[in-house]
Amino acid sequence: MISFCQFGAGRIGQIHAGNIALHPKARLKTVVDVNPQAAKALAERHGAAVGDAGTALADPDVGAVLIASSTDTHAALVEAAALAKKPVFCEKPLDLDRKRAQACLDVATKVGIPLMLGFNRRFDPNFSKLHKQLRDDRIGRLEMLTITSRDPGPPPLDYVKLSGGLFRDMMIHDFDMARWLLGEEPVQVMAAASALVDSAIGGVGDVDTAVVTLKTAAGTLCQITNSRRATYGYDQRIEALGSKGMLRANNVLESTLEFSGEAGVVTEKPLHFFLERYAAAYRHELDHFIEAIESRKPPMVGGVDGVRALVLAEAALESSKTGRAVDL
Amino acid sequence: MISFCQFGAGRIGQIHAGNIALHPKARLKTVVDVNPQAAKALAERHGAAVGDAGTALADPDVGAVLIASSTDTHAALVEAAALAKKPVFCEKPLDLDRKRAQACLDVATKVGIPLMLGFNRRFDPNFSKLHKQLRDDRIGRLEMLTITSRDPGPPPLDYVKLSGGLFRDMMIHDFDMARWLLGEEPVQVMAAASALVDSAIGGVGDVDTAVVTLKTAAGTLCQITNSRRATYGYDQRIEALGSKGMLRANNVLESTLEFSGEAGVVTEKPLHFFLERYAAAYRHELDHFIEAIESRKPPMVGGVDGVRALVLAEAALESSKTGRAVDL
Amino acid sequence: MISFCQFGAGRIGQIHAGNIALHPKARLKTVVDVNPQAAKALAERHGAAVGDAGTALADPDVGAVLIASSTDTHAALVEAAALAKKPVFCEKPLDLDRKRAQACLDVATKVGIPLMLGFNRRFDPNFSKLHKQLRDDRIGRLEMLTITSRDPGPPPLDYVKLSGGLFRDMMIHDFDMARWLLGEEPVQVMAAASALVDSAIGGVGDVDTAVVTLKTAAGTLCQITNSRRATYGYDQRIEALGSKGMLRANNVLESTLEFSGEAGVVTEKPLHFFLERYAAAYRHELDHFIEAIESRKPPMVGGVDGVRALVLAEAALESSKTGRAVDL
Amino acid sequence: MISFCQFGAGRIGQIHAGNIALHPKARLKTVVDVNPQAAKALAERHGAAVGDAGTALADPDVGAVLIASSTDTHAALVEAAALAKKPVFCEKPLDLDRKRAQACLDVATKVGIPLMLGFNRRFDPNFSKLHKQLRDDRIGRLEMLTITSRDPGPPPLDYVKLSGGLFRDMMIHDFDMARWLLGEEPVQVMAAASALVDSAIGGVGDVDTAVVTLKTAAGTLCQITNSRRATYGYDQRIEALGSKGMLRANNVLESTLEFSGEAGVVTEKPLHFFLERYAAAYRHELDHFIEAIESRKPPMVGGVDGVRALVLAEAALESSKTGRAVDL
Repeated sequence: MISFCQFGAGRIGQIHAGNIALHPKARLKTVVDVNPQAAKALAERHGAAVGDAGTALADPDVGAVLIASSTDTHAALVEAAALAKKPVFCEKPLDLDRKRAQACLDVATKVGIPLMLGFNRRFDPNFSKLHKQLRDDRIGRLEMLTITSRDPGPPPLDYVKLSGGLFRDMMIHDFDMARWLLGEEPVQVMAAASALVDSAIGGVGDVDTAVVTLKTAAGTLCQITNSRRATYGYDQRIEALGSKGMLRANNVLESTLEFSGEAGVVTEKPLHFFLERYAAAYRHELDHFIEAIESRKPPMVGGVDGVRALVLAEAALESSKTGRAVDL
Repeated sequence: MISFCQFGAGRIGQIHAGNIALHPKARLKTVVDVNPQAAKALAERHGAAVGDAGTALADPDVGAVLIASSTDTHAALVEAAALAKKPVFCEKPLDLDRKRAQACLDVATKVGIPLMLGFNRRFDPNFSKLHKQLRDDRIGRLEMLTITSRDPGPPPLDYVKLSGGLFRDMMIHDFDMARWLLGEEPVQVMAAASALVDSAIGGVGDVDTAVVTLKTAAGTLCQITNSRRATYGYDQRIEALGSKGMLRANNVLESTLEFSGEAGVVTEKPLHFFLERYAAAYRHELDHFIEAIESRKPPMVGGVDGVRALVLAEAALESSKTGRAVDL
Repeated sequence: MISFCQFGAGRIGQIHAGNIALHPKARLKTVVDVNPQAAKALAERHGAAVGDAGTALADPDVGAVLIASSTDTHAALVEAAALAKKPVFCEKPLDLDRKRAQACLDVATKVGIPLMLGFNRRFDPNFSKLHKQLRDDRIGRLEMLTITSRDPGPPPLDYVKLSGGLFRDMMIHDFDMARWLLGEEPVQVMAAASALVDSAIGGVGDVDTAVVTLKTAAGTLCQITNSRRATYGYDQRIEALGSKGMLRANNVLESTLEFSGEAGVVTEKPLHFFLERYAAAYRHELDHFIEAIESRKPPMVGGVDGVRALVLAEAALESSKTGRAVDL
Repeated sequence: MISFCQFGAGRIGQIHAGNIALHPKARLKTVVDVNPQAAKALAERHGAAVGDAGTALADPDVGAVLIASSTDTHAALVEAAALAKKPVFCEKPLDLDRKRAQACLDVATKVGIPLMLGFNRRFDPNFSKLHKQLRDDRIGRLEMLTITSRDPGPPPLDYVKLSGGLFRDMMIHDFDMARWLLGEEPVQVMAAASALVDSAIGGVGDVDTAVVTLKTAAGTLCQITNSRRATYGYDQRIEALGSKGMLRANNVLESTLEFSGEAGVVTEKPLHFFLERYAAAYRHELDHFIEAIESRKPPMVGGVDGVRALVLAEAALESSKTGRAVDL
């Protein structure tokens, strides 16, 4: 039984805490949050205590740390947990600044703790099955990968301002998926982007609609498209073309119901947003983290993956501004 | 917090025990099974004790009884639980013999305990959404209902011999779905059946392929088709035609993956069998039972529903043999 | 080049005349219709002449006769064409009265002309592919066949009165499909039917919603469902379950367009009605008729198929009234 | 009745000749081809005569010219037909060289003949319905357009050598679709490309896998992906995301048949290649050309569209080599 200390009691923190509570090999021991009410409510729901960072990290009974607090606290908390020699699961990103992220990663690497980053989509059952079939050669040599990722609606402007921009905040997930599925590193990044959904997003220097093309050393091509708005729900699809066929992971719909009427044949919308769509992925990533701790093997997705995705995000941002491909 | 005593530690019992353990308002206190090893293993997994029927039912701390033992024990256990004034959730059927089932139901009714029957399909999210849309008039007046229900493969012959036959063992679920979705009682039953999947099933006097037509007083028609074998997995579909359109609940597939190759475009098979297909339904029926206990309202599906489904099963069996419609 | 004399210049006659005109081995020579304007218009469109039955059938240049006039004229025209030794393509049915149909068939058989009946659905590319795969053993032994056939809306009441009733007028097509796909004759017919769509249909003694179950000597089961109204368009589906899998022929949609919006994912409706849905089938049945004439082989679907379908329709009508299976 | 002179009796010429023959307002009068056997066979099939260019273009009875000969003959034939004041339908492209194409277009413009270019995909019923719905504001403001276009297999290397390269030969269709659907001109082109399908294609300096991003002045983004090989058939899809929803035109499948078995649920492959997939489009583009001649209105797609698509192709080729966006 691994006792967790969790930082962050907000929306995503509540998901993780619930999964810890349900896991047969884990329990939630301490909740830390800058908002005492939030911390208290979450702790009580799962029989945990409210604590502060220093005490919690010093507690020898704490066997793992889960960081789901705001992005600007990640790097410092990872370092503190690393110095306390606790395995860490950290929501992405380590930091929006690549150098800061790298510095944090260096600390964790030096201490040698398991550090897992919350690229949850790798643990979605549909995507992980697609990944397995790629590796099992179902479509032969991968030639073109297409990742479509659209949110149901844009976040509040205050969030946008602090988010680091679409490439670092939203497409970062897709860069990680691309690296994972391609199985090789992109060497060239081209991007084009616009603010079409909401001109206020453009007003603060960000974009809401973007297309990126990646190319690997072997010549494999990958497209990623992002939009901050899809009125039909959270659009999360992957398509892989290979020498022997094509694989697609389609959207997960709200139910299997289908209505036929005068307007046509209507199936349900995709699950609304990430909490619903990736509910299983959140459970599976926690399973993986706990297995990694128990087996003393490194997690499948670590701090270095966060840094590499950030490198791609920065390259895409640059390319979208200069109109030139960025070589890596 | 409601303490459960559960009878039966087999395959379906393990599902129910797991759901009780996960439920925030319930805990598993006692497990009773004729197989001591099975009882012990299940009790240990969920921090419960092994017990015997008499002691468990006399335990004032036990607030609910879940019966998942073999069919021939259901009626006696329901009666014993009723006499102990415990709310009962019983796997279907109360009894394969309609008179015995009715007698058992009479006892429960007289005592006045909540008695819920495990017609799990009513709690499947897809089917319950279809039901809601029927009641919300999405397709207007219901004219024709089609229920397709096929198992991935036939059960062992030993099971078939004791099962009461396809109509009572397998189609019983579909009769309950039909009654629930039609919203009125069938008044006529016509059936045709064959042993096509396995002649040994015919050899013991049963069938494995059957078609039933129900008609209500209002003239609404309903078809049910059963087969003991579908090589492509558990086939569970419902289609409802009304004056304003058609609703269908399609199969739940193993994933959203789709492969395109020389043989065509291949999507995944339906989830293999009832444990996978109805995992959510098992959770939701337990939720409903606990809500019924707490709210002191009768469960949505009770003993009388079991008896009425059995009446339809017996009528179908008779019609399949005589070639005459049975009027109810 | 085969010169056709065609009887009937109405809706379905216009389809056939157009196909004759387009066929490289055929031309339309004479059009006969009780309505001179209709005959003239159709003849002019395709460079044909208006004629009368006697002259046209006596014309040695006429190599084939196509009968698309009203049902009550079919039998007499077939007999007249037979006596003139002309190959005949006749729209179904030969006659609504089985004895009259048989008498007509006897004449044609005695003379030995090729007589093809317009069961167009056998020539639909989707259904004929399904038929081929059944014969090629793709699903092993056929166990259960399900035919769904629903019109977009009921015909005028005046048509209903003269139609012979739903079983003889509408389900007749499905009986033919069932016989063709089953590959063996049904030996038992059970039916249930209601007037739900329009009470006026019930008022003239007909039904608009019906379910039939057929059983063959080998025990294979077949269900047919008909409705005179499907608000979403012409619903024409076939499903075949066998020992090795299931085959389905789904509806043909108006286009491949799909719209995703707040109401869900909307695909197009099925093609509206038989003229659109079976456009290819009408072409292919003419091809087949011309090939039969040229190769001197009997057409795949002849007068006897019309009589047998009618036997099933009459049995279904009887069963729906008596509530007893009719054995054939 | 318009008499056509057609240049080219090869594969695509046979399609056009057949459509002319079937058209109620057109007939094929003269066939011209460098291969006398091919010209004779095609002429005989449709009751036309074999001719030579000079005589045919001088024939006052010839009311329209259809050019389906090899690409290198297009520009000269268009000019000759223009000088003879005949309306011209020309298979794309006018010429692989943009200056030559422009010069040819200038001649046609000066003379003032109707000149229609064979961008057949605009006349596909699915794509034209999508176009109509875009213009009818079904998805609001168009934000992102995705065009997927993959051939079933690469052409012979000899063809590749003379083709002008993937961007000019294959993606040219997609550039035209993009311009048509976007409703505004792209101002920026970025491209990435590889030879992955066949290294011999790379060996002759061409590519077989390519991704292009277009951006309009309004910021709308468009992606085009091409591959010379899709083992599952001709993959022709369009997806349009707008402020109010998404429209997709999916592949047209060989039939509606669906097989469910141990490997999953298998639907049919897309129609194999352009002759099958765009059969209706070829008919409809001829209809449009004839309507344009009759109504004296310019065809929807003319020589200027050919030149503009070529500009995009050249920009994409340059971008794929330099790694820089090309501004137009």
